[in-house]
Amino acid sequence: MLKVSAKDAIYIFEPEMSPAASVKPGEVFKVETSDCFCGQIKSEGTLCSEIDFDRINPATGPITIEEAEPGDTLAVEIIRMDLADHGVAVTVPGEGLLGDSVERPSTKIIPIRDGKCLFAGLSLPVKPMIGVIGVAPEEGAFPTGTPWSHGGNMDTKDIGPGATLYLPVRRPGALLAMGDCHAVMGDGEVCCSGCEVAATITLRTSLIKGSSRKWPILETSEGLSVIVSGENLDSALSEATSEAVDMLKAGLGLSWEDAYVLSSLAMDLRISQLVDPKKTVRGVIPKGILTTSKLFKR
Amino acid sequence: MLKVSAKDAIYIFEPEMSPAASVKPGEVFKVETSDCFCGQIKSEGTLCSEIDFDRINPATGPITIEEAEPGDTLAVEIIRMDLADHGVAVTVPGEGLLGDSVERPSTKIIPIRDGKCLFAGLSLPVKPMIGVIGVAPEEGAFPTGTPWSHGGNMDTKDIGPGATLYLPVRRPGALLAMGDCHAVMGDGEVCCSGCEVAATITLRTSLIKGSSRKWPILETSEGLSVIVSGENLDSALSEATSEAVDMLKAGLGLSWEDAYVLSSLAMDLRISQLVDPKKTVRGVIPKGILTTSKLFKR
Repeated sequence: MLKVSAKDAIYIFEPEMSPAASVKPGEVFKVETSDCFCGQIKSEGTLCSEIDFDRINPATGPITIEEAEPGDTLAVEIIRMDLADHGVAVTVPGEGLLGDSVERPSTKIIPIRDGKCLFAGLSLPVKPMIGVIGVAPEEGAFPTGTPWSHGGNMDTKDIGPGATLYLPVRRPGALLAMGDCHAVMGDGEVCCSGCEVAATITLRTSLIKGSSRKWPILETSEGLSVIVSGENLDSALSEATSEAVDMLKAGLGLSWEDAYVLSSLAMDLRISQLVDPKKTVRGVIPKGILTTSKLFKR
Repeated sequence: MLKVSAKDAIYIFEPEMSPAASVKPGEVFKVETSDCFCGQIKSEGTLCSEIDFDRINPATGPITIEEAEPGDTLAVEIIRMDLADHGVAVTVPGEGLLGDSVERPSTKIIPIRDGKCLFAGLSLPVKPMIGVIGVAPEEGAFPTGTPWSHGGNMDTKDIGPGATLYLPVRRPGALLAMGDCHAVMGDGEVCCSGCEVAATITLRTSLIKGSSRKWPILETSEGLSVIVSGENLDSALSEATSEAVDMLKAGLGLSWEDAYVLSSLAMDLRISQLVDPKKTVRGVIPKGILTTSKLFKR
């Protein structure tokens, strides 16, 4: 089975990138990822202020998906994630929702044992997730620490094993890359880090030819979520609502007005993260309302 | 069993209010509530623009809780909710996240049958909740349509059967009132209404003497949520994070820094509503981390 090494990493998503590997749709493969610090923090003695910030948020890849063309949707099924035996969390003055109250930088090494993250005398159940995952944008250069419509640093806790992420293909071969895995993270990622961890991800991709949406869409056992980032939180929330209404309108053949009311009754607006250069939210449409076969016209 | 009639309703939460009824802690009682339109909308021919806005968001009560004194916490256990056979949803130009796209007001009558809300060809499972619930504030006058630290129009979908809401007692007797029930609503309430419904709520209260927190706290099977409202979304989110960190610090005896990291790993910041005069969010601390017995010092 193909395994893409963490040594092949990008720090910017851009239209032209040299592929590190190539897979066929339907092929199961593995992707090794460094933690978001590129493994530079090995003990609590190393502070975030001391590391090389040119090596933050590496994304392993990019990986060419054969036959992927602009206008398609790339479905990425996350089969499993194998995590390192510890994670890292940091606080940084000025960073996070309460950054003004952080007096000095700190580093916490968090052991991961038997499916639990051990922190502050508590055992938090591991819920692995991928923080950075995306494809080549149509234009522009997006640092891997930034989320946008190509994916990127969406820091959405539901992007984990059992979920399928639908990304809009904008360039030939899609050029998929991923990293910044977390063993556990709360919606918001309020202190600016989850339990940052190196991981090996097992994946399978498929293509929906000739149909795509503007923003990434995630399918979980809960339903379909549209993942939207914005310059600020209010703009992200309005855009997510607008996109969810349009998905319900298009997928179910409703009037705009009925789709708007339905989104108010049934869709949950949730926060993914508030601490990256752009803010990310998701509109969660529960199972039983909309399916990908209705949403994507094939 | 005592049943408080929906005819006894307030439209403002304020320090001095004449009680409509009185209950003992531990006593099971019922509260009848009108829908948020005070029953003025009986068909799809009645638009929101035509009704008397002095009769919006009635809250049945207030109800004196015997022995409740300032500095206590009032625990309100929601045992069950019996709903009317239909609900109402509306759109109003300029209201809700996409109000600019609403061309004209509309009214939808939503039948409720066998535990489902029937709308747009779909059957949405009923998940009853209380939109307005609160106690007398220490000072000031809060219209029932507004949420704040006394409770009020928090529009938090988790305030329903099986949940216990902890409200800070600020005035003798607490003076509890509630209304604005919904058969179903998504986090955000994006179009400005859920499935608005008349309901009869069965409740039981108890008191935690001499201990209270600043903001309402909700206990569900999921964990403990602090429910915070703010002048805008960003301020509500920061305050909810700050309060959650303080709850973890106080309840678990952690350093502020560890509590901040723990909140980033485990707490979900969620949106309750974005369409009232103030915005409401909640910080959800999952079960197994913090209990009310640790949080409230008795």
